[in-house]
Amino acid sequence: MRKIFEAELKQLGNDLVDMSGQVEVAIAHAGTALLTGDLQVAETVIAADQAIDALERDLDTRCVHLLAQQAPVATDLRIIVTGLRMASTLERMGDLARHVAQISRRAYPRLAAPQALSGTFAEMSAAATRVAQRTTTLLETHDLDLATSIEEEDDLLDHLHEDTFTALLGGNWNGTPQETVDTTLLSRYFERFGDHGVSVARRMVYLVTGEFLEDGSPVR
Amino acid sequence: MRKIFEAELKQLGNDLVDMSGQVEVAIAHAGTALLTGDLQVAETVIAADQAIDALERDLDTRCVHLLAQQAPVATDLRIIVTGLRMASTLERMGDLARHVAQISRRAYPRLAAPQALSGTFAEMSAAATRVAQRTTTLLETHDLDLATSIEEEDDLLDHLHEDTFTALLGGNWNGTPQETVDTTLLSRYFERFGDHGVSVARRMVYLVTGEFLEDGSPVR
Repeated sequence: MRKIFEAELKQLGNDLVDMSGQVEVAIAHAGTALLTGDLQVAETVIAADQAIDALERDLDTRCVHLLAQQAPVATDLRIIVTGLRMASTLERMGDLARHVAQISRRAYPRLAAPQALSGTFAEMSAAATRVAQRTTTLLETHDLDLATSIEEEDDLLDHLHEDTFTALLGGNWNGTPQETVDTTLLSRYFERFGDHGVSVARRMVYLVTGEFLEDGSPVR
Repeated sequence: MRKIFEAELKQLGNDLVDMSGQVEVAIAHAGTALLTGDLQVAETVIAADQAIDALERDLDTRCVHLLAQQAPVATDLRIIVTGLRMASTLERMGDLARHVAQISRRAYPRLAAPQALSGTFAEMSAAATRVAQRTTTLLETHDLDLATSIEEEDDLLDHLHEDTFTALLGGNWNGTPQETVDTTLLSRYFERFGDHGVSVARRMVYLVTGEFLEDGSPVR
């Protein structure tokens, strides 16, 4: 009985890694779609989000079943409750990747990111992809150094988000309303990737150390 | 033992109602701050969000303790897992109210909502407040008719969100970049209140009926 339960917990962990891997691909591809205007890549991200949503529902159901059938305590309980929450956060990251891809698709054949900000969005896309990659590796290895590095990428995304607003509001902006709207939303979505990555990172710290850190305190 | 556990479950329900009531006040006040430019009201919303965050952490801790100590099954388990998730969603609604208040504060003494869209934002604010009020009553009474009415308010918020974008992108928009940015973000935040309200409503349907509905299907 214990052996089967342990196998199920392990499978839960593996599935979270798998889900995070899919989110990572979605974020990387959403960035590509945004920066290159590749319509097919945008469509791929939009379609793939359904699989991510399905993974969340599946993980969710299994976590609740494990709670009901195994009445876990201590570390086992922590693994399952954390799994529930991470699945929900990863699903939200998938939604954001879809939103970025949808903006790119709507702009096609124009590029959604204005020329003047293409460098900033390239940086944001790279940072968001690193957040997702490190999240996947953190889930896989439980190496808490990655949690620190996710916080750093989140700081970078916050700065880039501010840069975008400075560009929009600095007085030299002459984009169309559509460009202003798209830039505002895109920048907000990228900034949120960082927040969600930090949320997963902090939950992993909680899982490994038993300590949950408040907003604003460093991961370690 | 069972008696204490039942009292704790009841307290959990009461605290969610209390939390939802605080979120309701935050959303209503955020709307007032936005529409009237009242700086003090904006400050109140921003300050009150800390109490909402603290409530979430408290509810969260207690849910995990109940899972560990009581090993609940069936309905009891469902109440606790649903409580965990609702607390997280309500906390997010509180954050959004804070974001609206922060935009109002930054715009002061100017009004953040452009004159041409003040009617639309008044409608959005009223609809978001109704979402929150109905959420509180739904949590209190478990009356599933309210879930349907929350879905309707969410549809209304989606339409108003589209109206805003039509106004921004219809060719007659002559707002400043700051107004365009603020309008985009505010409209997005109000639209999200509806999504979160629907999320709580669907979880309540799950709690009462045991059936969880997919995105897009009606609440009942």
